[in-house]
Formats: sequence, C-alpha cells, structure tokens
Amino acid sequence: MFPLNQWYAAGFAWELQDKPLARTLLNHPIVMFRTDSGEVAALEDRCCHRSVPLSCGSLDGGGIRCGYHGLLYAPSGLCIEIPGQLKIPGKARVGAYPAMLRNEVIWIWFGDQPGSEPSGPPPEVAAHDNPRYRYKGGAFHYKAPYQLIHDNLLDLSHVGYVHGKTIGGNPKVHMAAPTTVSGEGEQVRVVRWMKASQPPATYTAAWPFKGLVDRWQEIDFHVSHLNIFTGAVDAGSDALDDPQRGGFHMRGFHGITPETDTSSHYFWTMASCAHPDQPDNAELVYRQTELTFEEDRVLIEAQYRNMLQFGDATMIDIHVDAGANRARRIIAAQIALRTPAAAPGME
Amino acid sequence: MFPLNQWYAAGFAWELQDKPLARTLLNHPIVMFRTDSGEVAALEDRCCHRSVPLSCGSLDGGGIRCGYHGLLYAPSGLCIEIPGQLKIPGKARVGAYPAMLRNEVIWIWFGDQPGSEPSGPPPEVAAHDNPRYRYKGGAFHYKAPYQLIHDNLLDLSHVGYVHGKTIGGNPKVHMAAPTTVSGEGEQVRVVRWMKASQPPATYTAAWPFKGLVDRWQEIDFHVSHLNIFTGAVDAGSDALDDPQRGGFHMRGFHGITPETDTSSHYFWTMASCAHPDQPDNAELVYRQTELTFEEDRVLIEAQYRNMLQFGDATMIDIHVDAGANRARRIIAAQIALRTPAAAPGME
Amino acid sequence: MFPLNQWYAAGFAWELQDKPLARTLLNHPIVMFRTDSGEVAALEDRCCHRSVPLSCGSLDGGGIRCGYHGLLYAPSGLCIEIPGQLKIPGKARVGAYPAMLRNEVIWIWFGDQPGSEPSGPPPEVAAHDNPRYRYKGGAFHYKAPYQLIHDNLLDLSHVGYVHGKTIGGNPKVHMAAPTTVSGEGEQVRVVRWMKASQPPATYTAAWPFKGLVDRWQEIDFHVSHLNIFTGAVDAGSDALDDPQRGGFHMRGFHGITPETDTSSHYFWTMASCAHPDQPDNAELVYRQTELTFEEDRVLIEAQYRNMLQFGDATMIDIHVDAGANRARRIIAAQIALRTPAAAPGME
Repeated sequence: MFPLNQWYAAGFAWELQDKPLARTLLNHPIVMFRTDSGEVAALEDRCCHRSVPLSCGSLDGGGIRCGYHGLLYAPSGLCIEIPGQLKIPGKARVGAYPAMLRNEVIWIWFGDQPGSEPSGPPPEVAAHDNPRYRYKGGAFHYKAPYQLIHDNLLDLSHVGYVHGKTIGGNPKVHMAAPTTVSGEGEQVRVVRWMKASQPPATYTAAWPFKGLVDRWQEIDFHVSHLNIFTGAVDAGSDALDDPQRGGFHMRGFHGITPETDTSSHYFWTMASCAHPDQPDNAELVYRQTELTFEEDRVLIEAQYRNMLQFGDATMIDIHVDAGANRARRIIAAQIALRTPAAAPGME
Repeated sequence: MFPLNQWYAAGFAWELQDKPLARTLLNHPIVMFRTDSGEVAALEDRCCHRSVPLSCGSLDGGGIRCGYHGLLYAPSGLCIEIPGQLKIPGKARVGAYPAMLRNEVIWIWFGDQPGSEPSGPPPEVAAHDNPRYRYKGGAFHYKAPYQLIHDNLLDLSHVGYVHGKTIGGNPKVHMAAPTTVSGEGEQVRVVRWMKASQPPATYTAAWPFKGLVDRWQEIDFHVSHLNIFTGAVDAGSDALDDPQRGGFHMRGFHGITPETDTSSHYFWTMASCAHPDQPDNAELVYRQTELTFEEDRVLIEAQYRNMLQFGDATMIDIHVDAGANRARRIIAAQIALRTPAAAPGME
Repeated sequence: MFPLNQWYAAGFAWELQDKPLARTLLNHPIVMFRTDSGEVAALEDRCCHRSVPLSCGSLDGGGIRCGYHGLLYAPSGLCIEIPGQLKIPGKARVGAYPAMLRNEVIWIWFGDQPGSEPSGPPPEVAAHDNPRYRYKGGAFHYKAPYQLIHDNLLDLSHVGYVHGKTIGGNPKVHMAAPTTVSGEGEQVRVVRWMKASQPPATYTAAWPFKGLVDRWQEIDFHVSHLNIFTGAVDAGSDALDDPQRGGFHMRGFHGITPETDTSSHYFWTMASCAHPDQPDNAELVYRQTELTFEEDRVLIEAQYRNMLQFGDATMIDIHVDAGANRARRIIAAQIALRTPAAAPGME
C-alpha cells in the first residue's frame, strides 16, 4: 500500500512528444499525452472495447485513438468516436486521473477515494525555473520498493562508500560529520556539515576550489519526493547557514514513485550553478550524477533481492538511520489512516 | 479448457526431417516424427525410464531412440528395445496420439476420452493442392490464449488500423463496409464487400489493377482453424458473389492451436494466384502477409498482458464483434458439454 | 531437504582472490573470502544493518566491509566496526559456517543443529596432490536438483549415448558390460569392465594405445561428492583389478552441492597421467571432459523441465539403475533421520 493523497511525479514535459507515454504508477497502467491546449492527460491505459493498451495507438485531434479498431478517446476518458457505428454506449469510457505539468515535471494524483480532488497544486521544483541554474534529468527504473530509495536518500553517509569516484570523498569524514534531523508534519529535514574537508572529485571537476572546503548536505523529504541541496565553499569563506552563501551548488530533485509493490520509478533532475571560468560544468555534473545514481540502483536492487532471500531476518539500526526511520513512520501513519481497524474479536 | 474432439494443426510436412519435432499442444508435450511408411507419429515427449524428452534423442529404424540410455520406441508408443536388457516390462510405453498428414499440414487429435478415435478425416486445405495457386507458410508463437487470435481473424475491420502499410487500406472504408455474419453448426461465416475502393499496397504490388477495385473478405471459422479468402477485381468487372470471378485471390489457412492455457501456436499458409505479367508475386504476397501477422502478434500479446493487468475490467461490444462472439459461443458450448454439472446442493 | 551432516564442496582455492566470492549453497546465500592467515571464512551474505549482500563490499584487514555504510565483519561473523559510532550492539553479527581448504577444494559444513561441529576433516581429493597427475577443474551451474546429477554419474552406461564424440565409445558395449554394485554405510561403489573394446576418442587422443583396450570405470559415491576413476590398458597387458596397473588413468572429482531445492552447483576436477610421448595431454583431457559435462548438463536440465511438465508420471527402472537407486536410499534415510515422525492420528 502507498500513501494516495499525494501528487506523484509521473515523468517530464519533454517526454510528451507525438506518441503516447505509457507507465505503470502505483499499480495502475497509465497512458499520458499532451492535449491540444498543451496540458497533460492521464488515462487508464486500456481501450474499453477489448482491453488493448491505448498506448499502442496514436494521438489524434487532442485525444488518443486505439490502434486496434480505432475508438477515439477525449482527455476526459470519454469515448467520442467508434468508427462505423453511430451510437456510442454510455459505458464507453476509461478512467482519467488529475495530472498537471509544473516546472517541466508531470504530476499525477490518485487519491484515496474514487474521484477525489487534489488537495492543492503540485509541488514546486524551483531550481528548474531559476536562471542561476542549469539542469537536466532522467528516469531510472528500480526492481525494488520505493522506501528503500527513501532510506538511501535520507542518509547521505553512504556516499563515501558507494560513490567514492564522484560525489563521495573520505567515507569516515561522512560518518563522523555532525548531523541534525528535524521536521514537522509530513516532512523530514536532515542537515550535515563537513567543514574543512577534502572536496570530492565531482566538486573539483566542476568548480575551482582553492583547497579544503566547507561542505553541506540538506535533505528535505516529502512523502512523494525529496529535494536535496548539496554544495561547498572554500573553507572558512562563508557561513554554511547563510542562505546567500556562494560557492558550488547542486540542487537535486528526486521523485520516487512506486510502479508496483516491488518496483519503482525514480524521476530525477540535477541543477547546478556555473562558475564564470567553467560555464559549461552542468553537463559534467549531470553525467557524474547519473553514474552515481546508477551505483545506488545496483546496490539497492541487490539489497532488495537479499531481503527476499533472507525473509524476515532481523535488521539493526545504527546512528545514520534517524532520518530514514522518521520518514518510514510518516508513511506508515498515512497508510494506517486508510486501513480500517479490525473489529473486536477478529484477528 | 479446450474443445477436444477436433483435429488441430500441429505443424507442416516440411518440418519432419531427420530430427524429432517437439511441440507442446493443448498442454501436452508432444514429439512428432516421420515413420518408415512416410506417415507421421505423435508420442508423449517423455521416456518412460527417467522422463528425458524423447525429442532429445534420434530417429532410428522408423522409431525414436532416447538420447540418455537408448530405449527405442515404435510409432505406437511401445518400447521395443532396452539396450543391455532382454526383458522389456509391460509398462515400458508412452502415450501415442492419432496424427495425420493432409495437404502438407500435420493434424493431431486428442479427444475427450482416453483412446477416442477421430470422428473423420482431418480438414482439407484445398489451395495447397490447387495448381492455380502457389503457397508458403510458417508458424508463429503467441504469448496469448488462442481465442484472442480467433477474435482478430473473425473481424477484419482491424486491418485498416493495424495493417495500413500492407493489406489494410482506408480504415473507415473497412469499418463502414456491409458485413454479413452467418453460419450453422460449429461454423461461422463472415463476408464483407468493399466496392469501388482503393486497393491496398499489397494488392497493387501483386496485381496490375487499373484503378479502384471491388474487394471481398470471406472468413470461414471452424473450431480449430479458419480459412480466409480475400481478393479483388477491377471495379465493376465481375460479380463479387460469382464463384468464377477473376482478379487477385489470396487464400489463407490459419491453424490456431493452443499451446497452453495462456499461449498458442499459429500455423498459417498464404496461397495466391499469379497474374501472367507477374508470375512471381507469391513470394511478395507471402512476405507481406508474414509482416502483417507479426503486427497482429505484437498487438494481441500487448492486449493479453493488459487483460491480465486489469483483471476483470468490463469490456463493451461494438458492431464488429458479431462473428467473434458467435465463435466464442460455439466453443463455450463444446466445453460445457464436457463439464459435468454441479450436483444439487454443491457450489 | 538435504543431508546436512556433510562437508559440501563450495568452490576452489583459486577462486579466493581479492574480491568476496558469493554463492548460494543448500539455500543459504554465503560469502566466502580468504582470511589473513590464509584460511577461508564463510559468512551469511547479509549485512545485519540493512541486509545488503556483504559480497557487494570489499575485503579489509582480514575481514569484510559492507559496501553501503562500511560495517566491518571479522571471519567469525562479528561486526567489529561501525563507522561514526562508538558502541557496537551485541546483535551486530552474522552467521558463520565451518569452512576449510583441503587439496585446493573449499569445503563448507552446515550441520543439522545450529552451531554443530563437523564430524571430522573434509574429504581428501588425493589426485590433486599426487605428482603423477595433472589436474584442472571448473564449476557448472545446473537448473536441476542435485540427485539427478547423482543418477547420471552413478550410471556410466549413458556415456555411449550422450558422449559419443569424446569419452563414449560403442553404446551397446557399455550397456552389456559386466557391472558390480556394492557399498557399505553411506557409500556406493559401481565397477564396470569393458575388456578388448575399442578405445573412445578422448583415450586415443591422449594415449598411444596399440589397438583394443581393457577399460575400467570405478565410481565411488559419497553423499556430497563422487570420485570416479576411469582408464584403460592395452588389451591383455595388465590385470584390471591390479592397483599397480599401468595405462591411461582419469581421476575425476565431482562435488555435487545443492544450490536450492531445484538447482545445483557441480564442482569438478579431472586429473590424468601423462604418457612420456604425450606430456601435455592433461589440457586435452580437461577440455574434452568439460565438453562432456556440458552435454550432461543440457540433457539433465531438459530431463528436469520435462519432469515438471509431466508431474508425477510413473518412471520404470532398468538394469542400469542399481547404483543410483542405492544412493537415493542412503540420502532418503539421512533425511528421514532428521524428520520427526508424525504423531499417531495425524496425517
């Protein structure tokens, strides 16, 4: 089960071209396409006639036409043409889901009641529209449930062990760095500072640091996505808690959307600021981030396969788990709200 | 469950070479081979000693020899030699099924009772032995149950949407063409005429039509196979219901044989007549037919995966479904005959 | 279920390099590595923190370090370092299994009680340390349960049918050869002589026989492995039961270790003696043996798939099954010892 009263990332605006875009999201096979008005439509990916995926069809006049017998559907899910037949039965329709584009991210809402309306607009990913930043992103597919990816992102102490060649740096510095975990409502915030530390490979490739750096990691967890701001200034040159601090900034967006109970989509972008001497560093940062996320995917998929192998073997907690455990409690509470308590006398 | 008192296509004569031919048919793993008398034998594909597939062995003296310890079986399924052992136990035998060659098609009979005899000879595929026609065929494997292929073949209105580049033509002409559905007993006949229509790409490539054509599609459904005759004459040059009509003829044989409950074999041939100016058009017609059937396979497999995804989501019927629905009723009735009614008081 | 009070082969010494070695053995995912003292350690392949396979980590100071958050484990399975955390919880440990190297084979012991000690040293594979022999080996993975491999090795009558191009020879000579089956305790011995027979292809390639040969096959089955000695002398030149007989000798080691209930590891070596005129025949013998074992794998995997297809279809026994059936009874008895009898009145 998943929290349902959430906007979930479903893809990126640039994926909506002249073909339907098909993805399974929260166990629902969905077809997405851009309508004539430039908005995005998200329908059940199934023709109501013989269950052929609508995504095997084609876009036609702002709607989508089935590739088997040509039934045409409006963005509302209503069938508006059955070739060769005048009367269209009332049942000729498929489910439609609220979907919106914001900052080039496609967001979709399932809701915990049929037809329930979103509680507000989709989340903002401000760096996408901030002229100081350039960004690029992609989508990873994980053969692992979504919360294992949360665990990974809420504890950046792993970067020293897993990402030594790119954004890592000395692992023991990470593990010993002062870390604060806070948060309210459905959010968790984890902040870690590593002062006067050696900059990792990606940082020195992208920015002309003079030597040691003061480095920050700021993780903001929301139920369906995380924003992670990392960066560094030359050691001692700026206060780490100054919102106007200079230096090198990476602003990651991480939309973690369950595909099924056991698999996930990971929609991500990485935005970075350029130094005047290195105006084209964004591509380098993107490439190294992609490599890094691939390292995570390999590890987390191995972790999940191993969890299945070992069944309910006990796990122990260590100091780095505080943020991840808090996020798990938030999700468990959301799911419990939807689960009717067992009646007295029932098991 | 499948109708069992039927001859099912199991392959083609040209597949019976110097090696055993193995296929699972109606959930039975079967090994086929040509006997010394030129007939075909069809045995359970399992040595009675240690269950190795007989199809891993070799043909020997009109029988088949297991590749593990050399047990030799006659076409009757009887073990007739155990190397190094004089006595052959009475249980040393495997199941044998009635099988016959006719018009180069291999046919097999399972029957609804052990040892039941076929009710008659296997079906004729007359075009295979008609000197006016040249033909060629092949076998497709479908990850989809057999009745989805029936649905497809009994409703050729799909050709405009699925096969636009070959045998299709204008989709809306297909959907609007007058169609008659008839049939008696275990047969269904669907006939559609498209007068004064644009000939599709395959037709113009294979035959020197002058312009618009009068086109026919005649589908004859039998429980285990379909014969589909299509073709066209120059518009107005011949009556469409004249058995002696001229023009371009395609005569398709479609043996749809369940492999398992969820997968199928599709044995097909396409025969066509040659125009004096294009004596070699048969190869072109065959190639384009193969391409066409591959398009169907991709679509139907996607349809079946989607049906599994969506479970028992409702489907609606449209005008083109009349023939397919009649065929489904015939098969349901055959299966119901074999299914004992629940006793009163039982669920 | 498997016999547990046995040393099982787990690999070879040469596989223990600078990376962890991961294998599932008797349903247990295991990581192996060489310790500082040159011994082998075998641990549960799972970090106790978040279940990541330890085999994704690295060897460090004689122990193994998890590749996610850096927890370090000693060869005993005890966690001895959690980076960034002073206190190590008592539960921070993983299971360790008795493991030993002998004659370059890695052996592991599971035992039928937690913590049970091995009943003695692991088996000897004497040919590995016999200067008259040169040997080489490998590991095959089988998608089939282990006892089907026992059946195969305990009945070498199959070599004529399956391995005609290498170690086979005339199949009917094999099937008719006098064979004795004996054994005591948990061992089975099958001996077969083929006097004055044509030497098979591998023999003539490796040894300058003058013509016909007197040939022997001596199979010694133990619950977890087999030693199979085969060879030949020029016909009439030596007594076949003389331990000092000359000629060409092949000494095979076959460690058959269940991976899971339905898959197996096959660790094997082949040692052979060299003729003065053909000092380098060992590589040829190894290559042809590998080819031969691959033929067995293909056949046995087909056999197992077929057994699953046909469910509980009856099998008949023939004369060659005596040794294999005796081995199956030994294993059934070992497993029965561990299985509590059903209480009276229970099914």
